[in-house]
Amino acid sequence: MSVITLTTDFGTGSPYVAAMKGVILSINPDVTLVDLSHDVPAQDIRHGAMVLDSVSPRFPPGTIHVAVVDPGVGTERAIVYARMGGQQYIAPDNGLLSRLAERHRPEQLIRLANAEYWLPEVSHTFHGRDIMAPVAAHLARGVPPERLGPPQEGLVAIQWLRVHRGERRLEGAVEEIDSYGNLITNITAEMLEGRPTDERACVICNIYETFGIYRTYAEQPPGTLVAIIGSTGRLELAVVGDNAASRLGIEVGMPVIVAWE
Amino acid sequence: MSVITLTTDFGTGSPYVAAMKGVILSINPDVTLVDLSHDVPAQDIRHGAMVLDSVSPRFPPGTIHVAVVDPGVGTERAIVYARMGGQQYIAPDNGLLSRLAERHRPEQLIRLANAEYWLPEVSHTFHGRDIMAPVAAHLARGVPPERLGPPQEGLVAIQWLRVHRGERRLEGAVEEIDSYGNLITNITAEMLEGRPTDERACVICNIYETFGIYRTYAEQPPGTLVAIIGSTGRLELAVVGDNAASRLGIEVGMPVIVAWE
Amino acid sequence: MSVITLTTDFGTGSPYVAAMKGVILSINPDVTLVDLSHDVPAQDIRHGAMVLDSVSPRFPPGTIHVAVVDPGVGTERAIVYARMGGQQYIAPDNGLLSRLAERHRPEQLIRLANAEYWLPEVSHTFHGRDIMAPVAAHLARGVPPERLGPPQEGLVAIQWLRVHRGERRLEGAVEEIDSYGNLITNITAEMLEGRPTDERACVICNIYETFGIYRTYAEQPPGTLVAIIGSTGRLELAVVGDNAASRLGIEVGMPVIVAWE
Repeated sequence: MSVITLTTDFGTGSPYVAAMKGVILSINPDVTLVDLSHDVPAQDIRHGAMVLDSVSPRFPPGTIHVAVVDPGVGTERAIVYARMGGQQYIAPDNGLLSRLAERHRPEQLIRLANAEYWLPEVSHTFHGRDIMAPVAAHLARGVPPERLGPPQEGLVAIQWLRVHRGERRLEGAVEEIDSYGNLITNITAEMLEGRPTDERACVICNIYETFGIYRTYAEQPPGTLVAIIGSTGRLELAVVGDNAASRLGIEVGMPVIVAWE
Repeated sequence: MSVITLTTDFGTGSPYVAAMKGVILSINPDVTLVDLSHDVPAQDIRHGAMVLDSVSPRFPPGTIHVAVVDPGVGTERAIVYARMGGQQYIAPDNGLLSRLAERHRPEQLIRLANAEYWLPEVSHTFHGRDIMAPVAAHLARGVPPERLGPPQEGLVAIQWLRVHRGERRLEGAVEEIDSYGNLITNITAEMLEGRPTDERACVICNIYETFGIYRTYAEQPPGTLVAIIGSTGRLELAVVGDNAASRLGIEVGMPVIVAWE
Repeated sequence: MSVITLTTDFGTGSPYVAAMKGVILSINPDVTLVDLSHDVPAQDIRHGAMVLDSVSPRFPPGTIHVAVVDPGVGTERAIVYARMGGQQYIAPDNGLLSRLAERHRPEQLIRLANAEYWLPEVSHTFHGRDIMAPVAAHLARGVPPERLGPPQEGLVAIQWLRVHRGERRLEGAVEEIDSYGNLITNITAEMLEGRPTDERACVICNIYETFGIYRTYAEQPPGTLVAIIGSTGRLELAVVGDNAASRLGIEVGMPVIVAWE
């Protein structure tokens, strides 16, 4: 059975999500539907792109990921089908796939144009239900992507915060705050390779600093600020047993520095 | 595989929802379970009726929709099986199905009475788990509805806000506020047919007015109040890129007028 | 098709939940995935244990329940496989299964140790995704539990609030507050058996009291404090049509007394 995942900014529990599922099951009842996340903040393409990038590669090869964070719905923005890293994606071409595309060169890119695979009536405000959901259901039934529309050259890109790599320091930023309030940065385990991670490494965020990069939250006493390599393979800052973001007043975008003497 | 959807006021994430799913799967593991919405405000039958009405028709014919917004649980209120518009419904007979019933004349109405298809022990406070879930699972296994109880004549109705149609104006109301804060009215696209939708149409809500009825949110600059025909086929008011309900202080029930000079 | 349920403190809508589902489906696409609850308060093992205890027995025999409330992730705490009451559980051995184990003597207990059934790379902070999810998927494919690791003797236990049973009174406590604000106590229907439940029974919580134990919320007028036997088989206190917890300022752990003259 094919797997179709849904990622939206509709809010978990929104009946709009169920409407998309109803459309998919009406066309193809033999699919496994999985909610990737519907808690993407409203119209936050950047956040949606990070969720897709970190979670979708965990799914079986060929899984169809439908992503609807679509402030430009009803305008001229394209909706695309993309095959990247063995997974399939359907999304508005507004940057939502740009983070994945940085790591996985798209193997196939199609601009959705063939209305034969859409709902008969397409609203101007809900292409997730009227175009993307039915296209996903038809793909899962075996319709070849070539039938969905003409090939397209590249994807709309958005600018991601870069890590500045100096000789004795890495300068990155808080990129995401998870539901525990942990601060996930854009500094990856790869960037730290070959550098000391013991107390010679000083990690600085805002007015706070901590020494050493640990493997788990639980190695230090409650209330301690710790730096770890998190489950997404990126440097995270956490306060043991507490919510680091609210406790320290940190927001997405704030700089994080790792420095060695 | 049969599809069973669940709509409740338990709150998304409530383990009570999982209890219903466990009961269903214990009787019939070969079903596809879909959450329609569990974010119906507590005991808000009216809201539940609107969710069922707008989303359930999107599902495959024969889908079984179980709806539990049930302030009268344990009292003499009936639980009914209804077939309407090709879909099947199981719900307390308290108005929850009344909005659907206005548009789709019920093809079959049964009062659940045959305890053979219920859990052996029925609590007084959770008929969703003890009666409705097992009945849905048995229906999906092929039990004919006639076996569930005696036929019933009509459904309990609740009063819906009507649109007053004058020669040069429609007087409706805000009926729903979605998760983006958009104001969804009870004025439908059909009611607007044949009327001008350009700037001659003035849409008024509270002390705010806007001219013209547009097709999409994105045609106007951020911060603008716009009137559009939304994805549910009803007139909606939105503030581009913002939450109209909180920005303008609008609540469900407030009048909305469309006037032509 | 095997059923796998997930219980976590990640928060409903968390993409971490989806990551676990992706891992499971990659190993075994033929499973039915059900969310038991992801709204366990962060690191609240006690709450997670109650959710598992009250909901998991509703599922088909053999269902695999994966529970991740894991403040000690990355430390020496064990992860266990347990068969209890006909259901299967995978969880950190930190008390999360201790409430179930009080009622259902574990039929089989295994300490997860065989990395052959884990993801090739195991992070230090997300064993739910890297160990528990893949083990569940392999179990559902038919891997015998004996292959997962060595047998283990007992489970880590946590202390539960006890009910003190006097001749003319039961002294218990509020154990849980549900999404309606109803106060669920640790006094069970069994403890009340043979005692009067009419107005001779006085139920006291904080400075409030009510007489009689009823069968349903709806028998009394709105605003009334009522005591009922709830759907979990335990004594509950509710305010008809209102949120008892916030209205009366009650929190988990506060004493509840049933007294007879």
